[in-house]
Amino acid sequence: MRERERIQRLSALFGVAPGEGIDLGIGDDAAVLRAPTDQELVWTVDAHVEKVHFERRWVTWEDCGYRSFIAAASDVSAMGGAPWCALGALSLTSDVSDRDLEALAVGQSVAARAVGARIVGGNLSAGEIVTITTTVLGLTPHAVRRQGAKVGDGLWIAGEVGLAAAGLRALALGKAGSLVEQAVLAWRRPSPRVSAGLAMAGVAHAAIDVSDGLACDVGHLAESSGVRAVFDRALLLAHGGDALARAAEAVNADPIDLALNGGEDYALVAASVLPIHGFVRIGEMREGAGVYVREDQGERLVEDRGFDHFARPE
Amino acid sequence: MRERERIQRLSALFGVAPGEGIDLGIGDDAAVLRAPTDQELVWTVDAHVEKVHFERRWVTWEDCGYRSFIAAASDVSAMGGAPWCALGALSLTSDVSDRDLEALAVGQSVAARAVGARIVGGNLSAGEIVTITTTVLGLTPHAVRRQGAKVGDGLWIAGEVGLAAAGLRALALGKAGSLVEQAVLAWRRPSPRVSAGLAMAGVAHAAIDVSDGLACDVGHLAESSGVRAVFDRALLLAHGGDALARAAEAVNADPIDLALNGGEDYALVAASVLPIHGFVRIGEMREGAGVYVREDQGERLVEDRGFDHFARPE
Repeated sequence: MRERERIQRLSALFGVAPGEGIDLGIGDDAAVLRAPTDQELVWTVDAHVEKVHFERRWVTWEDCGYRSFIAAASDVSAMGGAPWCALGALSLTSDVSDRDLEALAVGQSVAARAVGARIVGGNLSAGEIVTITTTVLGLTPHAVRRQGAKVGDGLWIAGEVGLAAAGLRALALGKAGSLVEQAVLAWRRPSPRVSAGLAMAGVAHAAIDVSDGLACDVGHLAESSGVRAVFDRALLLAHGGDALARAAEAVNADPIDLALNGGEDYALVAASVLPIHGFVRIGEMREGAGVYVREDQGERLVEDRGFDHFARPE
Repeated sequence: MRERERIQRLSALFGVAPGEGIDLGIGDDAAVLRAPTDQELVWTVDAHVEKVHFERRWVTWEDCGYRSFIAAASDVSAMGGAPWCALGALSLTSDVSDRDLEALAVGQSVAARAVGARIVGGNLSAGEIVTITTTVLGLTPHAVRRQGAKVGDGLWIAGEVGLAAAGLRALALGKAGSLVEQAVLAWRRPSPRVSAGLAMAGVAHAAIDVSDGLACDVGHLAESSGVRAVFDRALLLAHGGDALARAAEAVNADPIDLALNGGEDYALVAASVLPIHGFVRIGEMREGAGVYVREDQGERLVEDRGFDHFARPE
């Protein structure tokens, strides 16, 4: 299909009728929206780049559309927002067939429905590698920021950490089977955290989503807030449970290392005095700086080994 | 620099302080905005992909940042909106230096200021080719759509057409000099059309920006509106003036062909009964379908030769 026909096909698939503040969806130069007057807009953009964020042999096109969308929507949840509308910019290589594109769009569409958002437009382009860039607008009565955590706050988490990293490692190593099945699914189809995100708004002092790694991302939150984060090893392992333990064993990794340094689960972490519905406690905020883990032997500083797009080999 | 330092550098460069509806800019999971209650939001995303939209030898990094931003902002102007806020997602190859990135960001920043928008966030990623994806939110009291042109409307244009295509051809052919200088500049540094876009709102029946080619883009507008577009050859050539004539001669092209089929000038075209401030008339809307040009010998159907990302060689 030519560009125009592809746009028409996507338009039919995403099927945006006016309503819910959407005055005009796909098919014009831009979408036209009417924002609710009583809420803040939360706005993010996120790119999924072939050979950086995924290899084709690790995912179906539908997975690819799904996980790229959830990754972008996760930033909105991390601010205590509900995803509202999205645009998707696709750069496609010439060997991406009409059927591949349709599968990719189905993945985006399934993810959009899962988070309660509407895809209202986008952009199609040729390119030498596949890139999926998603921008999401969310709504919140009260945005939760990275800055704002206080000494004495508990550290709370919604969603697993480490499982997706184990799944990615299993895919890279070519391992399959029941031990890693759940981990591979965690990487390919990360769960949306919309209700957890909404539950934080007005309760949490600060929050972030775990994309690069728990220690790395919570390190950003702690630094922004001027506090020290202390994870509890036992709570982290209990939270990871059998699934993390099994997956870690299958890919020959330390479960606590996976939990602290594995990324792409898109869990939400919040700093809060009060418990938050859907979250479990994994540590707390103390005076000082840096990220620590409390073990039997005492507190150990956690080195930042989160993913860095521009880190040079040492 | 590592990813984190690059983000801090960009944050300092774009320098968003709260205000003008921006509650939170760069540095968190998402930007936080408060939309004016009396206006519609106009929202677009646009990608600039290396080897598709540009070759490095044709542009400086600053040009690259500038033109990618103007291309995205143009979609907002085409809806009668004023650009308000923007996010930029950059995929960078490992040979893009810190200085290159800074130049790219300066280009984005200059363009943002030129259209009156603020860059409030974005995304950095590695990648095997450079891709700059820009999403822009605009505000308008009354969005102008593609659909809505009426028989008897004049066809009005703000900005040149064909010059950028001549400039691109000159760059590809390695031609330089005074004959093509203005054309090359039109391609590298397209002019923003913010005031023209605002002037349309509430006056024009329909509008579009010229990115793929005048005939192609106005063809979309005509088809959406169920009318026929007729350009006046003499008016088009008069509008192109000496600059188009000279550039066409230098790259051995027909000026009317450049005007009708050249893209990337980001001119605005509107269908309107009344004249619009900043626009000149180049034709009108008639009953029927298709795109025609009126010449001395009568009306000639214009074949659609606009840019198509997925057209196969015949």
